[in-house]
Amino acid sequence: MEIKVLKNVMIKNNAIGNDNRRQFTKNGILAINIISSPGAGKTTLIENSISELCKKYRIAVIEGDLFTSKDAERLATRDVPVVQINTEGGCHLDAKMVSAAIGEFDLEKLDLVIIENVGNLVCPASFDLGEHMRVLVYSITEGDDKPAKYATIFKQANVIIINKIELSEICNISLEVLEKEVRKVNPVAKIFRVSATRKETLAGWIDWLGNEIEKFS
Amino acid sequence: MEIKVLKNVMIKNNAIGNDNRRQFTKNGILAINIISSPGAGKTTLIENSISELCKKYRIAVIEGDLFTSKDAERLATRDVPVVQINTEGGCHLDAKMVSAAIGEFDLEKLDLVIIENVGNLVCPASFDLGEHMRVLVYSITEGDDKPAKYATIFKQANVIIINKIELSEICNISLEVLEKEVRKVNPVAKIFRVSATRKETLAGWIDWLGNEIEKFS
Repeated sequence: MEIKVLKNVMIKNNAIGNDNRRQFTKNGILAINIISSPGAGKTTLIENSISELCKKYRIAVIEGDLFTSKDAERLATRDVPVVQINTEGGCHLDAKMVSAAIGEFDLEKLDLVIIENVGNLVCPASFDLGEHMRVLVYSITEGDDKPAKYATIFKQANVIIINKIELSEICNISLEVLEKEVRKVNPVAKIFRVSATRKETLAGWIDWLGNEIEKFS
Repeated sequence: MEIKVLKNVMIKNNAIGNDNRRQFTKNGILAINIISSPGAGKTTLIENSISELCKKYRIAVIEGDLFTSKDAERLATRDVPVVQINTEGGCHLDAKMVSAAIGEFDLEKLDLVIIENVGNLVCPASFDLGEHMRVLVYSITEGDDKPAKYATIFKQANVIIINKIELSEICNISLEVLEKEVRKVNPVAKIFRVSATRKETLAGWIDWLGNEIEKFS
């Protein structure tokens, strides 16, 4: 019975996810789902990416969080529409939550929707939100053994942003070893090495994302 | 229907958890459940704690992981019995898994059982494994805003080990601000500041835990 219910939940979620994706695509919007552990730097990455991208593109953000609206408040200063979803302890966003959030935006006036998922490297992997692309933000402080240990999310990611590279020496983490571990489970994902707090390191990612947005418009 | 199933799962889990706890207590064993985000330093803390504690106490470790046995292999060199539980993508340990693992140990010959949960700051909070104590390992690299954002697990923790304090300056995190944020959601938890890689910083935690073990013997 438990398995059947879980299956029903997933079927429903995927149907709503597909509907979300159709809406995004129809309106020429690229939608990305950003996933990471707590504190890996999702919000900082979003802040410093949209401050560049908003010069050229119309952006909205959906913020997932268990209880607070701290991240939405951080982003609200960036002059882009932000909708906060509080999961009240729930460990991931689902397609229904995103569907409700989309209703708050004027989709015809957007080029990019960024969805910041709940900080969790496990559960968000199971829920299609209707995104076109999964972006995994991975802080090198988490070590080089995690691609194998959290293989599901590493396998799924279209883009892997290795963050906090300025800490690699003090944390004794080799970026080469880490990338080799990533490649064992995901040979094709686009990889960027960044320090999300240092805007100059984000240029490659921002240029690439701008190019992807163009494909959808 | 989904809610009813979830409730049944929880009732069953708690019953098995209580049974596990009775077994630990009856055998004079302290059982602790160690929870953190991925890469916050649980395994390193366990390695460097048991290398001291095993001089005086008989210890066993239950290792939770999604897919690999990397952590169990690390600990196997420490000459304590280790049982690996692979959740096959599951986001937390549950009481039934721990019950099965306990069956592998000779409980009469143990003083401390350490359970290392799956790296996840959300889901493990909902599952009583039968432990006497929840130990939250929190890496300061995760930022000072997480106690409010992941309030459930911060509220539940009996002990909060703030790890990687050597990175506080380079990460621009004030330990005082972080502890103030912790205290807002949990005024009573025992707090230790450590660098799990540096054994000398673990003395306070190890002494305290030794004292707790004595209470159960």
